[in-house]
Amino acid sequence: MSNEKLWGGRFEKKTDEQINEFQASIMFDWRLYAEDIQGSIVHAKMLAQCGIISQEDAKEIIKGLHTVKQKFENDELGFRMEYEDVHLNLEKALTNLIGEAGGRLHTARSRNDQVALDMHLYVRKEVGNVLALIAKLQMAILAAAKENIEVIMPGYTHLQRAQPILFSHHFMTYFWMLERDFARFVRAYHSADYMPLGAGALAGTTFPIDRNFVQEQLNFQGIYLNSLDAVSDRDFVLEFLSAASILMVHLSRLSEEIILWSSREFSFVELDDAHCTGSSMMPQKKNPDVPELVRGKTGRVVGNLVALLTTMKALPLAYNKDMQEDKEGLFDTVDTIKQCLVVYEQIISGMKVKAENMRRAVEEDYSNATDLADYLVKKGVPFRQAHEISGKIVHYCIEHGNFLKDLSLDEFKTFSDKFDADVYDAIKPETCVNARNSLGGTSTEQVKKQIVIAGKLLENLLKNTAPLFSE
Amino acid sequence: MSNEKLWGGRFEKKTDEQINEFQASIMFDWRLYAEDIQGSIVHAKMLAQCGIISQEDAKEIIKGLHTVKQKFENDELGFRMEYEDVHLNLEKALTNLIGEAGGRLHTARSRNDQVALDMHLYVRKEVGNVLALIAKLQMAILAAAKENIEVIMPGYTHLQRAQPILFSHHFMTYFWMLERDFARFVRAYHSADYMPLGAGALAGTTFPIDRNFVQEQLNFQGIYLNSLDAVSDRDFVLEFLSAASILMVHLSRLSEEIILWSSREFSFVELDDAHCTGSSMMPQKKNPDVPELVRGKTGRVVGNLVALLTTMKALPLAYNKDMQEDKEGLFDTVDTIKQCLVVYEQIISGMKVKAENMRRAVEEDYSNATDLADYLVKKGVPFRQAHEISGKIVHYCIEHGNFLKDLSLDEFKTFSDKFDADVYDAIKPETCVNARNSLGGTSTEQVKKQIVIAGKLLENLLKNTAPLFSE
Amino acid sequence: MSNEKLWGGRFEKKTDEQINEFQASIMFDWRLYAEDIQGSIVHAKMLAQCGIISQEDAKEIIKGLHTVKQKFENDELGFRMEYEDVHLNLEKALTNLIGEAGGRLHTARSRNDQVALDMHLYVRKEVGNVLALIAKLQMAILAAAKENIEVIMPGYTHLQRAQPILFSHHFMTYFWMLERDFARFVRAYHSADYMPLGAGALAGTTFPIDRNFVQEQLNFQGIYLNSLDAVSDRDFVLEFLSAASILMVHLSRLSEEIILWSSREFSFVELDDAHCTGSSMMPQKKNPDVPELVRGKTGRVVGNLVALLTTMKALPLAYNKDMQEDKEGLFDTVDTIKQCLVVYEQIISGMKVKAENMRRAVEEDYSNATDLADYLVKKGVPFRQAHEISGKIVHYCIEHGNFLKDLSLDEFKTFSDKFDADVYDAIKPETCVNARNSLGGTSTEQVKKQIVIAGKLLENLLKNTAPLFSE
Amino acid sequence: MSNEKLWGGRFEKKTDEQINEFQASIMFDWRLYAEDIQGSIVHAKMLAQCGIISQEDAKEIIKGLHTVKQKFENDELGFRMEYEDVHLNLEKALTNLIGEAGGRLHTARSRNDQVALDMHLYVRKEVGNVLALIAKLQMAILAAAKENIEVIMPGYTHLQRAQPILFSHHFMTYFWMLERDFARFVRAYHSADYMPLGAGALAGTTFPIDRNFVQEQLNFQGIYLNSLDAVSDRDFVLEFLSAASILMVHLSRLSEEIILWSSREFSFVELDDAHCTGSSMMPQKKNPDVPELVRGKTGRVVGNLVALLTTMKALPLAYNKDMQEDKEGLFDTVDTIKQCLVVYEQIISGMKVKAENMRRAVEEDYSNATDLADYLVKKGVPFRQAHEISGKIVHYCIEHGNFLKDLSLDEFKTFSDKFDADVYDAIKPETCVNARNSLGGTSTEQVKKQIVIAGKLLENLLKNTAPLFSE
Repeated sequence: MSNEKLWGGRFEKKTDEQINEFQASIMFDWRLYAEDIQGSIVHAKMLAQCGIISQEDAKEIIKGLHTVKQKFENDELGFRMEYEDVHLNLEKALTNLIGEAGGRLHTARSRNDQVALDMHLYVRKEVGNVLALIAKLQMAILAAAKENIEVIMPGYTHLQRAQPILFSHHFMTYFWMLERDFARFVRAYHSADYMPLGAGALAGTTFPIDRNFVQEQLNFQGIYLNSLDAVSDRDFVLEFLSAASILMVHLSRLSEEIILWSSREFSFVELDDAHCTGSSMMPQKKNPDVPELVRGKTGRVVGNLVALLTTMKALPLAYNKDMQEDKEGLFDTVDTIKQCLVVYEQIISGMKVKAENMRRAVEEDYSNATDLADYLVKKGVPFRQAHEISGKIVHYCIEHGNFLKDLSLDEFKTFSDKFDADVYDAIKPETCVNARNSLGGTSTEQVKKQIVIAGKLLENLLKNTAPLFSE
Repeated sequence: MSNEKLWGGRFEKKTDEQINEFQASIMFDWRLYAEDIQGSIVHAKMLAQCGIISQEDAKEIIKGLHTVKQKFENDELGFRMEYEDVHLNLEKALTNLIGEAGGRLHTARSRNDQVALDMHLYVRKEVGNVLALIAKLQMAILAAAKENIEVIMPGYTHLQRAQPILFSHHFMTYFWMLERDFARFVRAYHSADYMPLGAGALAGTTFPIDRNFVQEQLNFQGIYLNSLDAVSDRDFVLEFLSAASILMVHLSRLSEEIILWSSREFSFVELDDAHCTGSSMMPQKKNPDVPELVRGKTGRVVGNLVALLTTMKALPLAYNKDMQEDKEGLFDTVDTIKQCLVVYEQIISGMKVKAENMRRAVEEDYSNATDLADYLVKKGVPFRQAHEISGKIVHYCIEHGNFLKDLSLDEFKTFSDKFDADVYDAIKPETCVNARNSLGGTSTEQVKKQIVIAGKLLENLLKNTAPLFSE
Repeated sequence: MSNEKLWGGRFEKKTDEQINEFQASIMFDWRLYAEDIQGSIVHAKMLAQCGIISQEDAKEIIKGLHTVKQKFENDELGFRMEYEDVHLNLEKALTNLIGEAGGRLHTARSRNDQVALDMHLYVRKEVGNVLALIAKLQMAILAAAKENIEVIMPGYTHLQRAQPILFSHHFMTYFWMLERDFARFVRAYHSADYMPLGAGALAGTTFPIDRNFVQEQLNFQGIYLNSLDAVSDRDFVLEFLSAASILMVHLSRLSEEIILWSSREFSFVELDDAHCTGSSMMPQKKNPDVPELVRGKTGRVVGNLVALLTTMKALPLAYNKDMQEDKEGLFDTVDTIKQCLVVYEQIISGMKVKAENMRRAVEEDYSNATDLADYLVKKGVPFRQAHEISGKIVHYCIEHGNFLKDLSLDEFKTFSDKFDADVYDAIKPETCVNARNSLGGTSTEQVKKQIVIAGKLLENLLKNTAPLFSE
Repeated sequence: MSNEKLWGGRFEKKTDEQINEFQASIMFDWRLYAEDIQGSIVHAKMLAQCGIISQEDAKEIIKGLHTVKQKFENDELGFRMEYEDVHLNLEKALTNLIGEAGGRLHTARSRNDQVALDMHLYVRKEVGNVLALIAKLQMAILAAAKENIEVIMPGYTHLQRAQPILFSHHFMTYFWMLERDFARFVRAYHSADYMPLGAGALAGTTFPIDRNFVQEQLNFQGIYLNSLDAVSDRDFVLEFLSAASILMVHLSRLSEEIILWSSREFSFVELDDAHCTGSSMMPQKKNPDVPELVRGKTGRVVGNLVALLTTMKALPLAYNKDMQEDKEGLFDTVDTIKQCLVVYEQIISGMKVKAENMRRAVEEDYSNATDLADYLVKKGVPFRQAHEISGKIVHYCIEHGNFLKDLSLDEFKTFSDKFDADVYDAIKPETCVNARNSLGGTSTEQVKKQIVIAGKLLENLLKNTAPLFSE
């Protein structure tokens, strides 16, 4: 007795059930059903156009595929493990529906180029979704920066207070990180924007197909010019995962800060009650779960990238079954980053900036010490000397339990005779902030400019990328 | 209006639905339901025993938990996202069933130590399952080695034929890899075998609990002696993932070989038709999907390890929400390695060794060149000289298109006058194989010994570890 | 006693020696000396131009820096651990040389923006080196493809022979992979092409600097518009590492194939004696060490990527010392990929393609079974039926120990009456290959076109990117 | 002209220089010189003992090897790239010194089993070094815990204040993490404690060697019973890297906390001036570089683990050149973790705990809210109700800007009539801490017990493992 699989002619036995379950992918690749059907419709049109199948068959196939899609979305179609994957399940459903003509759909095509096409379509589509969510989060950041434009907070390096800065300036950093993420995902789109269909199993096809027709119908910018490459390339998935990993690194940095700022010690922000959870044991707890979870999920996305790099390592040409492992990690990454972006937009929109606490913090530290040094430099002291003098003054203050502003002019003068009464103004937080008026600096003027430019850039990006995702 | 969550007293608003979905874990941590109930039953017993709750309450709780478990397993219990996780869902189900007494179950406990307990119980249980499957695969390997005990094949280094060896010897290498895997998982068991309950949220509890009672009831070898450590330690999960990654490296090596051996070029083995699949396009194809997929899944398991290492990096004490990310990667790893072990046992059992092809390969190469050199050494030539002479003879053969055995004695003598007629016997495959009779060598005698020792070791291991998993 | 460090004013004690060694970076960041000096020269020019330092000071500084560079390159400059890093070592060397003016160089600058600038310059430079090597390897591949344009070999999927293809077609796949790598590194260049100097420690500077001047002098396409972003961004390094990881995945795939092809079982290619090594024990061995080592080094590069992703995860703004860890992995990756590309160009150029062995392989398999099915389809049999019939014929051949071409027409006809005498021509390797004449297929015509296009593309790429690296 | 390499007999050309440099390992594997010589001495003894070489030759070899070692350590021995690796360089040095007898040393041995032996010896030795450093750090932690035994600080979950705890309790968590690390490295030792020599290239040897003699001389607990396994196993390196990764996760968690505690916002500890560095720009900065750098180096070690897992994935048996990549990542990991442990011991020993700040923090939060709930439970209120009441009281306090201790009894009573005057005592930090007197809890009594047990455990561990490292 021969094997009943669609490919079973050469086999003596049926596939073992456990083995079949192990190698089946329908449990997860059903997510490609829309792309698979979209690709099949265009394939059928092309086959008819080139005279490879009849126009009648093509019409029946296309009508059938629409019906199959409808049925699946209405939950009327049972996918079965024995048909292995989304491709054979859909083909089987089509054949059940329209008979022999369905058997002609797979002419001049292999699952190898078919799944490649599906994956390209899927990545392109999901890049569109991700871009929209990145832009939304950027807008929330822009809004928060605008709303708190003149709030002064301590800027940190090494988590030590470094120099007074504007909260808006600090927060805008995340805008720029996301700006680069946006650009990276656009590039991931372009990397996915090559059409593999027509590569057959690996070597092309003996049928007189028209790959350019398929390309145009599916709006691809390019075609794989080598059939082996078309079926064995997963660079575009690796690029998507790599862009996603870097995005998560950014969100984890933001998360770390929001977690710090939500701590009682910092108390710089308060998250909305609706965005936090409590403890089953400790009644007072209000935990910043969302940022914590986003920070934690960074590992997951990096893990997905590592997984596929490891899987692809040292695979000979052309298609190998190992490559089936490209899907779950990608799907999980798509879900994860979309969720993280969605909840973060809410978190930022609902977050209350405690301006008075930030300001109080600046009053009680030595983050104006650089300005003290710069004051001396402007009076002609070489930078390294000025730095040393200021360091000694800070040390003097720590020993006396006070801050720079608390020193008398006489005390200042014991360190350098260049000091004058104007030193007090020079080390006020507002002075420190606004003195940093170089391009990209933290002065109010610069930050306002920055925000305007940022807003325009985002607007243009959205305008320029929109055509990629219009149908 | 206050928040209706079990922890909602301190909150002004309800949790946002999207946020709730994001931070909920019930979609995946339901898999801990059995461990959670097992732990709760013992916790309730202990509370009663210590007079913290009444014996009546304890009885009701325990009866209620059994019912809840039954209901869940009969699919009569709907878990709800709004109750976040398996712990609160089960507690809610219990309270719905038995009322106020259910509210007493969580006394002297927090979700932090509760989930830690669940995870420890889960890892211990799954180690048991993994060990059983490793042992089964080891037995299949032993059987294959025994059945093909004297089959000679080329041994490889750098994928170049190196020296003739026994197939049984080669194959037994995987037995020893799995032997180490077995030991590593046993160690992962012991690492998980510490009891965290009683740590509360982080600091212990004010109730006069008896942690030793819980330990004994749940058969733990040790107790966490520091409550913060108890709730923030995930080393045992990392160890499990690390053991799993190394196991997958082993299975991927075996896979690589079976894929090579199944190629037309090697043709050393044939997999069972029931364990392979075909191509939707190419009628002649019979693909070794299972080994390919196992090889590919190595990336996934390594990715899960990287994910948790990355997640745990730099988390301050004690519990952080990031740690919720410890579960999905673990569950996926457990499923993956169990599946891989199961299918591999089948693959090995169904695999046909093509002894004649292996033997033919040995006839047609230079893998006996070391024996030629050793022959000279035994006649007094220093090793480095003997090596060089043999190298030159191989080069001579390649140029003349023949093999060592094809040379005349005169030809041999032009390279060294130490050669005699006994050289022909010295370079026969059987001689080469059986001459390597040092401990652990490839001679039939040594391999037979090795198989006997291996069988006994495995038997003892199974006997010694059985008590860990008996209930 | 105060600390003698350049930043020691505020400190009471000297830095502990072991701690100093631990946190110093001069052992590896000396590699940035050229970039550091290049950046300092422009910084000095700008300071003078903006009137922040005098023109005389600037001249002295610039002359001094040229001298320092010369001395370093002549090995006359001892870098010292106590000066921590390349920045302070060079500044110290400058000050030793020219005195007080040297102390003015660091005005309006911090090590945070200085090291960021160095890294940007370094990545840009090394991208140039990598691109040149990629292009060289692509040319070697093109040459090998041209030279063996009509050599027929079996094409593989699942490492099973699938369909006859041209060796040139197969080999060109690697051209296209490298083409994408080329594009990815160009993008990494553009990502690095933003100018961070002027960001100061984190907040900009109080001096009236001109960042556009620095940008123009150093030929950057853009400027960081946010000072915190400028010092805390390492995306461009992550992108470089990510591009490098994907490149290594490609080289590891090529390596796997060359290792397979060099095996006695395949014998499809022979590497040059000068590119292989032998065994200390086995005189006949000739090992493909280079491809093996390249394959092995994939892990190393992926590891470097993982390292930096993990390091950057959850770092709060702005600079943190953790980020010092961005260098060694990058340097190692640069060295590794450059070496791999260099040796691979040699390997490919010296590799002998054994055309006759490849051709013989095609004669003795069933890789023409798809063509048999296609033959039937063209005679009107639906694809799925044709596939099944062909599968049964293959099965029949295996049982009878022969190949498709060996069947009599009568035998063919027992499977389908559509068979005719023209079937023999339809299943000849040349027919099979040349029948796949769709765009990107394996026919000689298509491959020739492909090679022409590829050559032109590469030429254009080189022409278009050249201006990026001209000085 | 033939190749002059020690293995060059079969080759027509000399190895290309660039290729040779690429595949050479002497640049890094010279670090194994001591192990290589140690192994060679025992090998020579064994050869003589078994009559394979003469006693005179053995004596000469051994004397020669001692001289070679001396010369290397006196920097009188130039290793050369052309001799590829440490093994051939040392053999060449020996032969240069003692002539022909040196050529006999490699009898019955291959570089494959030789390097395996070296690596086993190296890992065993370095485990010893790592264990000593872990123990030292544990002692520093114990000392800090003892010295600050009754200091109260806020305990955190989600970086939110959770419950008052003892600093000593919190800090001891790291003792236990390191305790598990210690155990893991001991296990890594045992995994490395198998003797591979005698495996030859892959198949054993034809010489009548005595592997047990080598085992005993080198003090190995076991022998590889399969020669292929002996040369292709790197599990013990993976285990070492895995243990190192988990250790770094622990040190990164400690680092995160010390960085937080050193921030102005927390101000819980002050690091020694001698252990910190300043800023080249900001005079007031005192940065916790060491913890930051340790946190950053976590990525590096995880990267090294990923690298080797990726490298080993899917390697066929037996030795492949890829495996040469096992060394640099291991060496780097050994150096990194040893350095991190050394500097951390200093950091902890020099760290000043600011008890008053910790205590003040506890006064000003709601971390006693659980005790308020527990108070109610003890008066008969079911836990869930008590939790809710307490939550509402916290909310009331937040709205009124005060803390639990500030409420009047009347105010308490408006929430529940169970409240009495003894509530004030119940919520004092000392009461809260000491009430958690369950095993492993934060009460002074429990922590004192914990410290005693910890001290004894460490002592025993050191006593029990000492014999492993005695010579």
